[in-house]
Amino acid sequence: MFRRFVSTSTLPPTIRQLLSSPTSPSSSVQVNGWIKSVRRQKKLSFAVISDGSSAPGLQAVFVDPSLAKGLTNGASVRLTGKLVESPGAGQEHELQVDAVDVLGACDPETYPIQKQALSVDYLRDNAHLRARTDAVTAMLRVRDQTLQTLHGYLKSQGFSYTHTPILTSSDCEGAGEAFRIAPITPVSLDSPSAPPEEFFSRPSYLTVSSQLHLEALAAAISRVYTLSPCFRAERSQTNRHLAEFWMLEAEWAFTQSVDEVCQVVEGAIKEIIQRGDADMALRDTLLDISHSDRPWTRMSYAVAVSELEKYHESSTKKFAFPPAWGKTLQSEHERWLADELVRGPVFVTDYPVSLKPFYMRLNDDGKTVACFDLLIPRVGELVGGSLREERLGHLKQALDAHGLSREEYGWYLDLRKYGSAPHGGFGLGFERLIGWLSGIENVRECIPMPRWAGRMLL
Amino acid sequence: MFRRFVSTSTLPPTIRQLLSSPTSPSSSVQVNGWIKSVRRQKKLSFAVISDGSSAPGLQAVFVDPSLAKGLTNGASVRLTGKLVESPGAGQEHELQVDAVDVLGACDPETYPIQKQALSVDYLRDNAHLRARTDAVTAMLRVRDQTLQTLHGYLKSQGFSYTHTPILTSSDCEGAGEAFRIAPITPVSLDSPSAPPEEFFSRPSYLTVSSQLHLEALAAAISRVYTLSPCFRAERSQTNRHLAEFWMLEAEWAFTQSVDEVCQVVEGAIKEIIQRGDADMALRDTLLDISHSDRPWTRMSYAVAVSELEKYHESSTKKFAFPPAWGKTLQSEHERWLADELVRGPVFVTDYPVSLKPFYMRLNDDGKTVACFDLLIPRVGELVGGSLREERLGHLKQALDAHGLSREEYGWYLDLRKYGSAPHGGFGLGFERLIGWLSGIENVRECIPMPRWAGRMLL
Repeated sequence: MFRRFVSTSTLPPTIRQLLSSPTSPSSSVQVNGWIKSVRRQKKLSFAVISDGSSAPGLQAVFVDPSLAKGLTNGASVRLTGKLVESPGAGQEHELQVDAVDVLGACDPETYPIQKQALSVDYLRDNAHLRARTDAVTAMLRVRDQTLQTLHGYLKSQGFSYTHTPILTSSDCEGAGEAFRIAPITPVSLDSPSAPPEEFFSRPSYLTVSSQLHLEALAAAISRVYTLSPCFRAERSQTNRHLAEFWMLEAEWAFTQSVDEVCQVVEGAIKEIIQRGDADMALRDTLLDISHSDRPWTRMSYAVAVSELEKYHESSTKKFAFPPAWGKTLQSEHERWLADELVRGPVFVTDYPVSLKPFYMRLNDDGKTVACFDLLIPRVGELVGGSLREERLGHLKQALDAHGLSREEYGWYLDLRKYGSAPHGGFGLGFERLIGWLSGIENVRECIPMPRWAGRMLL
Repeated sequence: MFRRFVSTSTLPPTIRQLLSSPTSPSSSVQVNGWIKSVRRQKKLSFAVISDGSSAPGLQAVFVDPSLAKGLTNGASVRLTGKLVESPGAGQEHELQVDAVDVLGACDPETYPIQKQALSVDYLRDNAHLRARTDAVTAMLRVRDQTLQTLHGYLKSQGFSYTHTPILTSSDCEGAGEAFRIAPITPVSLDSPSAPPEEFFSRPSYLTVSSQLHLEALAAAISRVYTLSPCFRAERSQTNRHLAEFWMLEAEWAFTQSVDEVCQVVEGAIKEIIQRGDADMALRDTLLDISHSDRPWTRMSYAVAVSELEKYHESSTKKFAFPPAWGKTLQSEHERWLADELVRGPVFVTDYPVSLKPFYMRLNDDGKTVACFDLLIPRVGELVGGSLREERLGHLKQALDAHGLSREEYGWYLDLRKYGSAPHGGFGLGFERLIGWLSGIENVRECIPMPRWAGRMLL
């Protein structure tokens, strides 16, 4: 009974579904979509119709050209006809159209999505329509595909998908870039001039990371992840930052090595690349540079800095920031490591304690923490992760050293006080991943409706 | 090569994975988890260990009782031993323990999660630890399971998973209950006393619904859905409302009947129930009352009101609010329809236009709109959906009638101006669904870390 139910399709097939299991040429089908192009010949007309489900769309052939008369780019139509093998090159099947139903006309003179190349800025201004361009449609499909693979991979590793709060009282990264929720004007007849009050009785912020909350859940159900919107009120206008972005964060108990955390990350990303299809523009290149048949390079921060120093001293091209142990790796350093030295993804591990947040686990050397950044070609940092400090005494000292209150983090200390377990996790910037997979330069084109400083349409 | 990759498991098996494909009794296994209970006998000791991956946990047997000496509830441990068939009732396999490694001790005197029944309020106060109770752990697994089924079902129907903005300038429902983002203090040396400014150059709010944004995407890739946090600054303290909750919203083009929208909803929920396991406390009851073998009842608002009126007039038990055409259905009405009249889920369709938002499609009678609410026993409204007004002229009139600005909704009108298509969709309150499936009375226990007026821990 279960199987019978699953096989019941409620909706008519999409173009993708139709092309992947074509009907018999004798049976009549209805296809819905938007006109992408029309080509009129004397005795025959052609149109490409797309419903966004697959890249190529469907070629429609009008043996009676009068049927195609009123068709314009952008119009939505319902075509009735037969799916037959195509004599032309470029497609296996085409639709021989018997009847046309224009559901929504589209004035070709005023339609903002014209066929010539449209600039990125113009499309950003038309955020509500830009998903109708091939490039943005492909990006949306890559997001969908990538999410599906991530869910499947993490499930196979025993993870539970969960949801952590978006509104929070804590600022996990301590970077002071959290958006704040405005107080509410109280509705009280007694005191019409009462001052605004906090809806939650205390100041609340938009989350910058789900990690601390995930740690509480991992301390109960071992392996958890979330895909959550994150927010940073950054004013920098780079091609790698958004004010609202999505982050995959995973956290699990009983792991005791940074290398194991790296393995889960590497496994997930390799599976995404291997499962990708033609929408993932750089798939073939990535299969090559991601060295899918052997583990990605691991390199300690100390070794990375020493390589950077060697290059900086010997090469004629200098870095703008001279590299040195104890200093932050700049974008130029990260790019050189991934693009030039390793020519592929590289996990840089064990950064100095002073460069990283309070929650990372102190190594035995007392100077570094058990962490990594995954650097990838063209993009730089894609993933960051670490073991978390599970030792109560060490964590208290780390809070003190960072000037954070033991009282405010009391609940976080409790996780170490009662049945603490060694644990670790990572966070992956979802839009950066999509950009890397698709060869898109700016993360603003990797999310359906981007938000950045000064800019929020729709 | 792809298959080889997929089969590679990076992490050691969870207890669920171990019990579903047990190892040979001669091979040694390591199991990580937290102690749930300890029972000491003279010659033998027992403990139940759980990692949260499955309801029963794993029974550990200590042939050498000294091994179990230091074990206390809540401690995290690594046990090494052999998985053997269990002679006892209640479990098929048990772990014969050879070695014990206490990773994190837990003082049984002060541990907040004691074994006796703990009140709901007490656990809300201990939001960081309550996931360690059996009830909350089961709820987390039901969320995970339900999400997985939803993703699979919508995929099979040709939908793409997408992300719509959380920060938005529009208030979709027009209910005025949106949280507002506080302006940012500008960092400028020139004017230290400059007034706060909007980060996005205009007021921004937290989304109350993703629908309008989903409509823009459905007008390009036909079938989309999102699972998104939604926010309402409601002060009401009911067991059905949270200030932050999750909503599944789906939207698709080329649908022309409310019944088709209902079918997709019904198909999804039935699949969730049928795929549920023992964690879903009410599964057997639901299979029964959800009439999985025949379609759920559809009933127009007019018929529902007439039934309510008949009951109200003839019964000795009166409603607090007398039902009448044109009036909102109150909770007491909704409950009576699902719990008493239909004794199962019921789609109530075609409400008066005055009771519904501007975007719903006007029926030919000019008085009602093509919409539905799905009412279910014990809970009331679980899903709401409709066809959307795709006719430009009608939509303009609806905006005017609701006092909304045509200019502000210009982008939304554009979707009708250029290649408009008939379309519809629905929104499903995720926590209400989890409550219904699990028999949990209050949605505060259906989300890991709840937020409501006056209350936000962690």
